[in-house]
Amino acid sequence: MAAYVAGNGEFTRDTNYITTRITADGRDGYPVQPGRYRLVVARACPWANRAIIVRRLLGLEPVLSIGFCGPTHDERSWTFDLDPGGVDPVLKIPRLGDAYFKRFPGYPKGITVPAIVDVPTGSVVTNDFAQITLDFSTEWTAYHRDGAPRLYPDELRSEIDEVNKRIYAEINNGVYRCGFAGSQQAYDAAYDRLFTALDWVSDRLAAQRYLVGDTITEADVRFFTTLVRFDPVYHGHFKCNRHKLAEMPVLWAYARDLFQTPGFGDTVDFTQIKQHYYLVHADINPTGIVPRGPDLAGWLSPHGRESLGGRPFGDGVPAGPPVEGERVPAGHGA
Amino acid sequence: MAAYVAGNGEFTRDTNYITTRITADGRDGYPVQPGRYRLVVARACPWANRAIIVRRLLGLEPVLSIGFCGPTHDERSWTFDLDPGGVDPVLKIPRLGDAYFKRFPGYPKGITVPAIVDVPTGSVVTNDFAQITLDFSTEWTAYHRDGAPRLYPDELRSEIDEVNKRIYAEINNGVYRCGFAGSQQAYDAAYDRLFTALDWVSDRLAAQRYLVGDTITEADVRFFTTLVRFDPVYHGHFKCNRHKLAEMPVLWAYARDLFQTPGFGDTVDFTQIKQHYYLVHADINPTGIVPRGPDLAGWLSPHGRESLGGRPFGDGVPAGPPVEGERVPAGHGA
Repeated sequence: MAAYVAGNGEFTRDTNYITTRITADGRDGYPVQPGRYRLVVARACPWANRAIIVRRLLGLEPVLSIGFCGPTHDERSWTFDLDPGGVDPVLKIPRLGDAYFKRFPGYPKGITVPAIVDVPTGSVVTNDFAQITLDFSTEWTAYHRDGAPRLYPDELRSEIDEVNKRIYAEINNGVYRCGFAGSQQAYDAAYDRLFTALDWVSDRLAAQRYLVGDTITEADVRFFTTLVRFDPVYHGHFKCNRHKLAEMPVLWAYARDLFQTPGFGDTVDFTQIKQHYYLVHADINPTGIVPRGPDLAGWLSPHGRESLGGRPFGDGVPAGPPVEGERVPAGHGA
Repeated sequence: MAAYVAGNGEFTRDTNYITTRITADGRDGYPVQPGRYRLVVARACPWANRAIIVRRLLGLEPVLSIGFCGPTHDERSWTFDLDPGGVDPVLKIPRLGDAYFKRFPGYPKGITVPAIVDVPTGSVVTNDFAQITLDFSTEWTAYHRDGAPRLYPDELRSEIDEVNKRIYAEINNGVYRCGFAGSQQAYDAAYDRLFTALDWVSDRLAAQRYLVGDTITEADVRFFTTLVRFDPVYHGHFKCNRHKLAEMPVLWAYARDLFQTPGFGDTVDFTQIKQHYYLVHADINPTGIVPRGPDLAGWLSPHGRESLGGRPFGDGVPAGPPVEGERVPAGHGA
């Protein structure tokens, strides 16, 4: 996603995305079709991480390929610097921006991940991160794996939407509001707002295993990608430092529970996450030195949340292991 | 103290201080005399914090006055910006550098705290921080309070010296080696070295209440001033982030035990500590934003170290409360 700081020192996020949708009925000109699209992500990015997780949970790997940008990017674009020759093997482009320009010459806004590219034309379809995962759940149903969880079930949508709204405004985006604050006053206000919200979610999760209902949903995915970055990045780099996640017992156990659920922790590359934030934000970390900590061993420790009940995948079954070619490199996980 | 980064990226500390000593026999021209000298400190500075603590523990307040510089300083000098009119009420100078120049016109090295100034001449006597506290213990004995602890007893000196040497090289200075590393390689090496040493001290303190012998000594004072700054500053700002102090159970309990001992925690101004590091090091924190965290409530929680035995003040008695005019402002402590 793209980031800006307004005149009053408060960080505001540009939320103007390409809102074309890939739908079952193809009403925007882009029908759901196996093999036609490519999801472009960076493991470092929390917004892209959502799409990686949901694609895994729903088992869309055989029908929607994935391209991984490297952890860092320049002023204008994410790049395929991890691929041989620095070129995406399917799209045959070195820079994600090329797919944006193919559809919108001179596209003036941020080149962001996640993005979905139409492979035959090489042009971007959408980068509307919030809609992308919902459409995976609701438009790609014909291609869900057997036993896929219901991440956005009809009967829970209003509650999921409500939780998502608050978590987005106060937490997902709240950590950035702390880190990109342009004044002490803006930072102080952002810090209070963030921890007030974290205390609220902690209370909510004290006696209930998941955010909404008794199974994992879209709401858990969205909260998880922020929590997993909290101690490695947001605590120090963004000064979200009232407590570490590891010092907030309910949230820490909740985060470990999800981390240990197939489809969550196995998508997380801590090395790339740290490289992204500490190398890209030269205005916050001009030395470019990437911290070696924190120690990650705790992520795999018992969380004890089973005692709260809940059925992670509902009537479904867990996702299998990551497919060949999509595994987090050894030493980059917990 | 003053700081430099060498060509290879490793931080090296200029250890060339003014080594004139104030002694009982006055062999350097500066005999111990009540009321003659003024100790100049900044509460923010760990090296000065040692002198504040030892002066308090030994009860030297009535014979050696103290002047407090503010938490920040410019390129060349600490200043008395906390005092009315920005002038030290005894020395009548706005900048500590003035006392250095009075003795050494054009003094080219760092203007550091702690420093002791000869009040009649207005010139600095010494800034040799390591010797200053030892001389408080060994040369100012005629003026120690009744019941003062023996911080540097003859029979333990070689062991204290040995522990101090390792803690200085690996920890007191080790945190700066992390924070001021000029390359990723230098930082990585510094981080490993620091936490190796912290693990060593943690093992040493697992079954023994204090570092040397069964009472507080100079060694505990020197270790404490680094530990108390660990979570507020070194963890995030200097990237010493394998664990927080609060996540290292033995060291955290040891630090709280000392913090709750009269003469230690009552000298600590967390607000000034954070302001100092986050505002002065613009090369590390160019935004100048000072973190609101960490939460400090834990410092006053029970530490349980009494069960290890030990007699904090040996045959002596605890120091009384800080004297009027030398108290940490409300809201700046734990």
